[in-house]
Amino acid sequence: MQPTWNSRLAHRTQRMKGSAIRELLKLTEQPEVISFGGGMPAPEIFPVEQVGKACDRILKNFSDKALQYGTTEVYNPLREMLAKDAVKNGLSCDRDNLLITSGSQQALDLIGKVFIDPGDKILVENPTYLGALQAWNAYECDYIPVQSDKFGMLPDSLEEGLKKNPKFLYALPNFQNPTGISFSLERRKKVVELADKYGIPIIEDDPYGKLRYEGEDLPTLTQLDSEMRGMEKGQYNGNVVYLSTFSKILAPGIRLAWVIGPVDVVAKLAQAKQGVDLNTSSFNQMIAYEVGKDGFIDEHVKVIRRVYNERRDVMLDALEEHCPKSINWTHPEGGLFLWVTLPKGNDAAVLMKEALKENVAYVPGGSFHPVGGGENTMRLNFSFSKPETINEGIGRLGRVFRTHLK
Amino acid sequence: MQPTWNSRLAHRTQRMKGSAIRELLKLTEQPEVISFGGGMPAPEIFPVEQVGKACDRILKNFSDKALQYGTTEVYNPLREMLAKDAVKNGLSCDRDNLLITSGSQQALDLIGKVFIDPGDKILVENPTYLGALQAWNAYECDYIPVQSDKFGMLPDSLEEGLKKNPKFLYALPNFQNPTGISFSLERRKKVVELADKYGIPIIEDDPYGKLRYEGEDLPTLTQLDSEMRGMEKGQYNGNVVYLSTFSKILAPGIRLAWVIGPVDVVAKLAQAKQGVDLNTSSFNQMIAYEVGKDGFIDEHVKVIRRVYNERRDVMLDALEEHCPKSINWTHPEGGLFLWVTLPKGNDAAVLMKEALKENVAYVPGGSFHPVGGGENTMRLNFSFSKPETINEGIGRLGRVFRTHLK
Repeated sequence: MQPTWNSRLAHRTQRMKGSAIRELLKLTEQPEVISFGGGMPAPEIFPVEQVGKACDRILKNFSDKALQYGTTEVYNPLREMLAKDAVKNGLSCDRDNLLITSGSQQALDLIGKVFIDPGDKILVENPTYLGALQAWNAYECDYIPVQSDKFGMLPDSLEEGLKKNPKFLYALPNFQNPTGISFSLERRKKVVELADKYGIPIIEDDPYGKLRYEGEDLPTLTQLDSEMRGMEKGQYNGNVVYLSTFSKILAPGIRLAWVIGPVDVVAKLAQAKQGVDLNTSSFNQMIAYEVGKDGFIDEHVKVIRRVYNERRDVMLDALEEHCPKSINWTHPEGGLFLWVTLPKGNDAAVLMKEALKENVAYVPGGSFHPVGGGENTMRLNFSFSKPETINEGIGRLGRVFRTHLK
Repeated sequence: MQPTWNSRLAHRTQRMKGSAIRELLKLTEQPEVISFGGGMPAPEIFPVEQVGKACDRILKNFSDKALQYGTTEVYNPLREMLAKDAVKNGLSCDRDNLLITSGSQQALDLIGKVFIDPGDKILVENPTYLGALQAWNAYECDYIPVQSDKFGMLPDSLEEGLKKNPKFLYALPNFQNPTGISFSLERRKKVVELADKYGIPIIEDDPYGKLRYEGEDLPTLTQLDSEMRGMEKGQYNGNVVYLSTFSKILAPGIRLAWVIGPVDVVAKLAQAKQGVDLNTSSFNQMIAYEVGKDGFIDEHVKVIRRVYNERRDVMLDALEEHCPKSINWTHPEGGLFLWVTLPKGNDAAVLMKEALKENVAYVPGGSFHPVGGGENTMRLNFSFSKPETINEGIGRLGRVFRTHLK
């Protein structure tokens, strides 16, 4: 008989949509298109030489371990390196607070697997990171959007959401994807205090924390939570699970990220990870360790900051030069993205067709909004394209705006 | 207030257990223990030189792609290489039938995500691969065990199970993990026909298919299904989703496997994969392609076969020499494992304490049985240890048997 695959799909597949962005990005792969759509690092500053040397050392000395299965939690030297870095940044934690994941996307999926029941409510920024929505939609949750201003989540809106007993709060306090907005110190403290008051755990996603181009580094929610609880040394055992990644400070192609959280939570996530992919590539974990163990990543981050800072400035200047006055955009202090708001009544998804005719692309903002809205917004990436390309691309975008905006 | 993580666990976590095997293996990591417990390839024949050369070439010529994000489906040259190999082995398929996954464990998880609703019934061999149970337990399914003999699934037991409308049938026809048993050609045909008759899809897991040490290669269920439907050229569009992996023919440390299935199913799995880890490491995919593109893997498989064949023979001979007559074991024609049955009334999990005192380890067979039973069975791996170590280890195990068996 005819194969019956379609009749056998799980209920949750109704919520699972392919990312509109990833489909869109396929359209923009032609070389003539200048794409501000993706969230990709600049490939010309990948530390190719260091990765190459690391591969050589690993295959020469540790091939039996590098090419073999590993346990779910390891590679231990990498966990220790990351724990030390976290301690240096003011967090009390040790290696048992750490789980290595196959990119932060896997951490988001594992969090969904361990914590989300169908019908659960998740408190998120509005807009928020699309990858988190994609990961969690498969667990059939609903979203409560929290309103923000340029200093981050608005305490009143947050408190209102917390009272609805969400499963957890998801926040990106540093140079948020998609808006580029950062939480002020005062707002960070407020978020940690309010979440604690209502007993709602926090998932803090911090892929860009080290990529600040102006202003002072601010403590993470995890650090503030740790301080509030008076944890000075030893393991972290608080109210926040923290995510970060090598994708933006080393290379996304090795698919490596990490979770820091209470030991019990990390153990649960590791248990879930066993069923999901057994372990993250031992070879890739060793690459990250070999590249990072003598402090190279801190040096490399300085290069990334210099390059992206310039690109951000070029994009901001070009927007100023080419865009009608009716358009607003954020001024991110770090990260990879800025956020453009068109006058009400314009639809960035519709405008995209005109943009593609001009061979320039962006991501329409609607899909970052978990419960709809944001049609008149768009995300622009400034890390991937070179300065002259950014200039040219924003020029094209300006023409689209001037010709087609209502 | 106190963090409230535990009160927020999802319902499904009640079904999620850490693998007893993985916990056990940690105990057996001391160098004095001879472990037949894991399922690890022989590290001394990893193709280290080829991987090293591949890394060099990739980083020299394609670092911008290798270290960057990829789309979920690619790396296309690797998909094409695998599709060609499948066609060479008699399957009609092309690259759109293929999805690269982060190990077969991820393929199992994605299959659970896309097809299993809580309460669904899954038809499995008894015993069956523990990793599949671990992946699918998280989706809260139940299992219908099918009885087997040394030629594979018993048609009557299979048909009885198929009548209960399971979501799908899961089978490992080649040198099954854990028993080492292979389906005969007749049984393979019967499985394909019966599954078709009742409209129940098949998941065929084939990690060891290329590792045959005696007898003739037999067609996969996928090939037989394809033939039955008269698909001669072009895309595969049948009743089977096929899994295989680089873990046993190249190296598990790069975490690479693949799925072959109907294009619609592969697209659904890819959509699920977006939310799970965005994409599998581009670098690792390129390594597998660079190592494999000129036919090296076929040559390397010959080396693996020679080495494992010897180890299997050494283990079989040692069992013959050291074990009481009351014990039975399988004679696998390939793969990595054989299966020992103790006289009824013995518990291999209890016996493990005595074995560890003798510094030898195995995996008790109980955990491979989805609905209980099999206490008097154990799995032995013969791929990892060198011949002299196998001899010594089976000698120790023989002493344990002779001293402690009821």
